[in-house]
Amino acid sequence: MSWTLRQLAELTGAEARGNADLVVHRPVDVDAEDPAGVAFCERRAHLDRSIGVGAVIVPPELSAGDRPHLVVAQPRAAFQRILENYHRPPALPPGRHPTAVLHESASIDPTVRIGPFVVVESGARIAAGVQLAAFCYIGADCVVGEDTAVHPRVTLYRDVSVGRRCILHSGVVLGADGFGFRPVEGRYVKVPHVGRVSIADDVEIGAGSAVDRATVGVTSVGARTKIDNLVQIGHNVQLGEDCVISGQTGIGGSARIGDRVRLGGQAGVADHVRIADDVSVGAGSKVHAHLREPGTYWGLPARPFAQASRINALLPRLADLVERVRHLERRRP
Amino acid sequence: MSWTLRQLAELTGAEARGNADLVVHRPVDVDAEDPAGVAFCERRAHLDRSIGVGAVIVPPELSAGDRPHLVVAQPRAAFQRILENYHRPPALPPGRHPTAVLHESASIDPTVRIGPFVVVESGARIAAGVQLAAFCYIGADCVVGEDTAVHPRVTLYRDVSVGRRCILHSGVVLGADGFGFRPVEGRYVKVPHVGRVSIADDVEIGAGSAVDRATVGVTSVGARTKIDNLVQIGHNVQLGEDCVISGQTGIGGSARIGDRVRLGGQAGVADHVRIADDVSVGAGSKVHAHLREPGTYWGLPARPFAQASRINALLPRLADLVERVRHLERRRP
Amino acid sequence: MSWTLRQLAELTGAEARGNADLVVHRPVDVDAEDPAGVAFCERRAHLDRSIGVGAVIVPPELSAGDRPHLVVAQPRAAFQRILENYHRPPALPPGRHPTAVLHESASIDPTVRIGPFVVVESGARIAAGVQLAAFCYIGADCVVGEDTAVHPRVTLYRDVSVGRRCILHSGVVLGADGFGFRPVEGRYVKVPHVGRVSIADDVEIGAGSAVDRATVGVTSVGARTKIDNLVQIGHNVQLGEDCVISGQTGIGGSARIGDRVRLGGQAGVADHVRIADDVSVGAGSKVHAHLREPGTYWGLPARPFAQASRINALLPRLADLVERVRHLERRRP
Repeated sequence: MSWTLRQLAELTGAEARGNADLVVHRPVDVDAEDPAGVAFCERRAHLDRSIGVGAVIVPPELSAGDRPHLVVAQPRAAFQRILENYHRPPALPPGRHPTAVLHESASIDPTVRIGPFVVVESGARIAAGVQLAAFCYIGADCVVGEDTAVHPRVTLYRDVSVGRRCILHSGVVLGADGFGFRPVEGRYVKVPHVGRVSIADDVEIGAGSAVDRATVGVTSVGARTKIDNLVQIGHNVQLGEDCVISGQTGIGGSARIGDRVRLGGQAGVADHVRIADDVSVGAGSKVHAHLREPGTYWGLPARPFAQASRINALLPRLADLVERVRHLERRRP
Repeated sequence: MSWTLRQLAELTGAEARGNADLVVHRPVDVDAEDPAGVAFCERRAHLDRSIGVGAVIVPPELSAGDRPHLVVAQPRAAFQRILENYHRPPALPPGRHPTAVLHESASIDPTVRIGPFVVVESGARIAAGVQLAAFCYIGADCVVGEDTAVHPRVTLYRDVSVGRRCILHSGVVLGADGFGFRPVEGRYVKVPHVGRVSIADDVEIGAGSAVDRATVGVTSVGARTKIDNLVQIGHNVQLGEDCVISGQTGIGGSARIGDRVRLGGQAGVADHVRIADDVSVGAGSKVHAHLREPGTYWGLPARPFAQASRINALLPRLADLVERVRHLERRRP
Repeated sequence: MSWTLRQLAELTGAEARGNADLVVHRPVDVDAEDPAGVAFCERRAHLDRSIGVGAVIVPPELSAGDRPHLVVAQPRAAFQRILENYHRPPALPPGRHPTAVLHESASIDPTVRIGPFVVVESGARIAAGVQLAAFCYIGADCVVGEDTAVHPRVTLYRDVSVGRRCILHSGVVLGADGFGFRPVEGRYVKVPHVGRVSIADDVEIGAGSAVDRATVGVTSVGARTKIDNLVQIGHNVQLGEDCVISGQTGIGGSARIGDRVRLGGQAGVADHVRIADDVSVGAGSKVHAHLREPGTYWGLPARPFAQASRINALLPRLADLVERVRHLERRRP
């Protein structure tokens, strides 16, 4: 791809300064050595580092001298606009690859793109604009909503529904049995999982993540929630809308997570725990009890952030404290 | 599916009360709005929440009035019985899908069901009643025991043996090389892993979990042990019988875990650590040293539960303690 | 396979003692019951445990009496030599399996071995000696260097480059979109990820691990770095050379990790954190701030090891400390 600086100005609503005929080929980092790249700078320090880049996007308060540059109120948003135009969609050509195994009872819109070695089982319904890349397995009676992109090597067990405009990355598994066993005479007997999984619209799920099937009822992920890689969501979880669940986080069975909840990487939420709307949990924290108030929590176990920070600041002084107590004890009473 | 309340009473050994001809179609949660659902209630609170459900299963001490209901000593066990009858097995039809690539030297029982795009390599032995779903890869000389169900997209590297009646969920990888390297002049040289993996009977392994091949000898998982999603089991681990290993837990190389051990979600066990029979480790805990006594452990590092609880209760009072010591120091000695 | 003890002596530069015509078939653990096995013993305790093994490898200072044995300065290195000779490479026969779907514009060396159901997209370049096992997906414009082994069921999204002599285990995903979203009016809008992933030479990546695509620029893994199973490496991470990243560790977006860094299992590194060369981070530790000095760190949050150890030693005495302060307060001032 290529744009002149003038074309980028039109695309982003910016003003072009310097050589407006300069041609750039790609969005890059400020640190790139790339005369054909365009980067954005929100601060002077970024601008100073950007000397290897062909063109920069700056806010009005930063002066880029006579370099080729764009001036716009929100450089990051302008850069996002360029990214969106540069972005190349999944590489599936129109049509259905001849190697795909599609059950005759599946209902597949004619606009669906299907890659090599895809399997769609009986009764599945695949809506218009969906892309099913290589090696995807769509189980019986699944529903995949309009314009959802399923990357290579995704498994949907039976009875899973996925909304519109979702993105499922490679290795995702939706609808495996929840981890439920009944102890009977000292041994564990499998609890059959006959429920479903329901993913709402505009959800993205990262590589290798898993959302388990409900025992009965449904495991649900709310609209616009974003889930990173290698995340585990247990059976019967209810995860709200507009949440951000970072990598390797685990949510235990039957937990109920509100809307706009943010869980940092490698966070853990125990079975049956409830988390209120607008809670943020720091990376690596483990939530073992309900969090009923909005706010930020951190630690093992997760505590209100201010309390956790105070504890962390004091812990390195513990040895000193012990010494001081010993000293006090030695005083003549 | 559908049952009359009378049929459910027969199935579960319960007594039907109210309208015994009521037809229900599925097991559901107490909270469901489903006049064709049946739920179980162990406590009054469950019963109060169950008003949207067509029929309920209650113990003798709970009165469900004139609602259609079943009375039985153990409602949960009765519900399990219904689940087991409702449960639909993996959707593989009998026979071998014509796309499967099966090595002529593999020994595959005629009753084995094989889905699309399955690969079975040379010398593998697949016993009666096994199901190999789409995209499964069974490496050379593997053994899969009777009635084991392998869900779509499971990888068995060569020389892996899996017992009878096991369930392997989508994305499982058995027999990848263990993580062993020898430092030679500041660089790491791969230690070839020539051992095996052995999974005993009645083991279930969740989506995306991995059990690594032994350097020499065998990495083993004991009978009836249940492993959740995204669990990592290192090379040469010996994991006992009747264990429950929750999601995203990791067990380091050469660890030896006893029988009836429970590891909570995101727990970690360091390399070479030994854990005695009947130990429970709380979610998020990290075991860095041997746990030789049965009991419950928790924390980073894992400590006996009572000790860990006491520490956790005291930590929020640390700031106050520092203040009190400062106050004592200010006293005239 | 089989060797006489004499042949093993030649292979390893050791001296054979006892019956040099003894035939052994495989390298084993000292604990094995295997008269046809050979094990190595570095200490007397190992030798005592090795009575079930046919032959042992010992250093000059250990006497194995009249048992068949090899004497060599470095028994472990000698054992490694045997492992390397015993090791069987991936089972791919020469040539391309007829079921593979290879784009005509892909450049694939004639020596490349390709298993069943492999997909190679347009513009990909696969160098001499590469092995692509069953179900691998190589996206458009990817590059795979000489003699790299790709195990079954690996996904490379487009524009991923992998160096020479790498090993990618089953379930690896390289190049999925990074986890980047821009909040716009309370909702998250996807930041398109148009960058690349670059894996240097001699890297090994374990089962189910994921390395995300950069937003712009490149996510990079340095030469000879070893990555275990179920590891998550975020977008724009720069991971150095000769690192060892243990299982289930996560590295947040844009983190910069130096050379010879070791991260223990389930460690976490927050977004944008920098870690100096020669840092070791203990298992289960969470790094939330830059680590600028070489050394060992541990804990939540990660602290210098000596400090973390002291805190851990003092925590069980916290209850006692509170009691002692109470006692001091009761003293007459």
